[in-house]
Amino acid sequence: MTRQLLAKTPRDVRALIRAGRWRGVTSGVTPGYVQANLAILPQDLAFDFLLFCQRNPKPCPLLEVVEAGGAEPALTAPGADLRTDVPAYRVYQQGVLTGEVDSLTSLWRDDLVSFLLGCSFSFEAAMSQAGIPLRHQEMGCNVPMYITSVATVPAGVFSGPLVVSMRPIPREQIVRAVQVTSRFPATHGAPVHIGHPEALGIRNLARPDFGDPVEIREGEEPVFWACGVTPQAVALSCKPSLMITHAPGHMFITDQRDADYAVL
Amino acid sequence: MTRQLLAKTPRDVRALIRAGRWRGVTSGVTPGYVQANLAILPQDLAFDFLLFCQRNPKPCPLLEVVEAGGAEPALTAPGADLRTDVPAYRVYQQGVLTGEVDSLTSLWRDDLVSFLLGCSFSFEAAMSQAGIPLRHQEMGCNVPMYITSVATVPAGVFSGPLVVSMRPIPREQIVRAVQVTSRFPATHGAPVHIGHPEALGIRNLARPDFGDPVEIREGEEPVFWACGVTPQAVALSCKPSLMITHAPGHMFITDQRDADYAVL
Repeated sequence: MTRQLLAKTPRDVRALIRAGRWRGVTSGVTPGYVQANLAILPQDLAFDFLLFCQRNPKPCPLLEVVEAGGAEPALTAPGADLRTDVPAYRVYQQGVLTGEVDSLTSLWRDDLVSFLLGCSFSFEAAMSQAGIPLRHQEMGCNVPMYITSVATVPAGVFSGPLVVSMRPIPREQIVRAVQVTSRFPATHGAPVHIGHPEALGIRNLARPDFGDPVEIREGEEPVFWACGVTPQAVALSCKPSLMITHAPGHMFITDQRDADYAVL
Repeated sequence: MTRQLLAKTPRDVRALIRAGRWRGVTSGVTPGYVQANLAILPQDLAFDFLLFCQRNPKPCPLLEVVEAGGAEPALTAPGADLRTDVPAYRVYQQGVLTGEVDSLTSLWRDDLVSFLLGCSFSFEAAMSQAGIPLRHQEMGCNVPMYITSVATVPAGVFSGPLVVSMRPIPREQIVRAVQVTSRFPATHGAPVHIGHPEALGIRNLARPDFGDPVEIREGEEPVFWACGVTPQAVALSCKPSLMITHAPGHMFITDQRDADYAVL
């Protein structure tokens, strides 16, 4: 993260991005504010995708839906523009990645519906504050993610396997990790499984499907959380004519605070 | 409640209803199981209504959506049929109540989408178990409900005021009432306001818009929860060609337990 971003508000950072003055990875930017996964789909798929999210709230915790014709997430970031305020976008046509762009202005259509979904940054911040180690951060790599044998609940044209992220947790801190992440249902919430990768159909923790492998130390158990890659993978599997997402790690920064979404 | 219902499972009760052998009010039936508000709308309104629920989770806590072409809520009550398993239905055409029926078989259309929403029975059971008095139950009347000056978050064609229910709570039990109901976000969750009806635009607690007035005793404060009448009122205000709901108090009984929806 460059020095220019220190102590900036979400609105300031979005203005920098919109002006083309910054295009970095958003991890660690504007700590305490909720960052979101972005998925944009044509209107004819919007009901099915919204219902898919309703049925699968752990992998698909919806923060806001912007209806066709609009690009301003008025509830979570008033004044923002989803076409210009994300540092990097990925464009998929017929389910195939066809490009990475830094603005959607020339691609935009009036039939596009935008979905903002919670991401793991919020609960990882809460885990850090509770003194629970985050191995992938210690190692400076991406969290390991695995395609499981657990099916999501289908909705219309959308179906597919649950994708999970894994964090090794010392056994004496697992209860606390469950408690801390349970407070954030809008950002994946409580773990989906503790301890047995094979129960999720994961054969080899050293070979994640996405991200990087991390070390599991003596006295630690692998703990699995539903992952925001799930909705993207599921949406792409039906090969929509057009789908646009944020580029990995380049999230949309909302004006909402993590604390706004904490339960109890 | 008749003796034939004692110790019955939700499935048993639904079978009695389907066979035309029981058509009563469901309050107190199958304690511990989640009962649901029902709203059925044509498919052309389904995206907007689903989005309205997503944006207003306190008055509109979605339990399940059954897509067009189906009538089985496979997630919350496998094997049930929403056309026959509710003790009484109300039919609205162009926003006007045109009849009360005990089966939808002859009215059913393949373009109807069914929405099941959490109701207050779940959190009232939790309040009772915590020793918090429920005045309307003590008085044997309906909970008082009020149309507020607080707007819901609009979605597409749907907008309108928040409707709340009110329960008088002894001051020393208000914190506990907040804690207990916070555990049930899928059934309206925590209160929306404590103590000042005028802050919600309510002028006279003795004259509720729906239900019955209840006594507020010395040392008690009125506490307000978002109410499931909200989505029905909002849906009707746009005068849909057809809308079907459960008749008041005649809820759909799911196979889910209240405890399944408790957080922490």
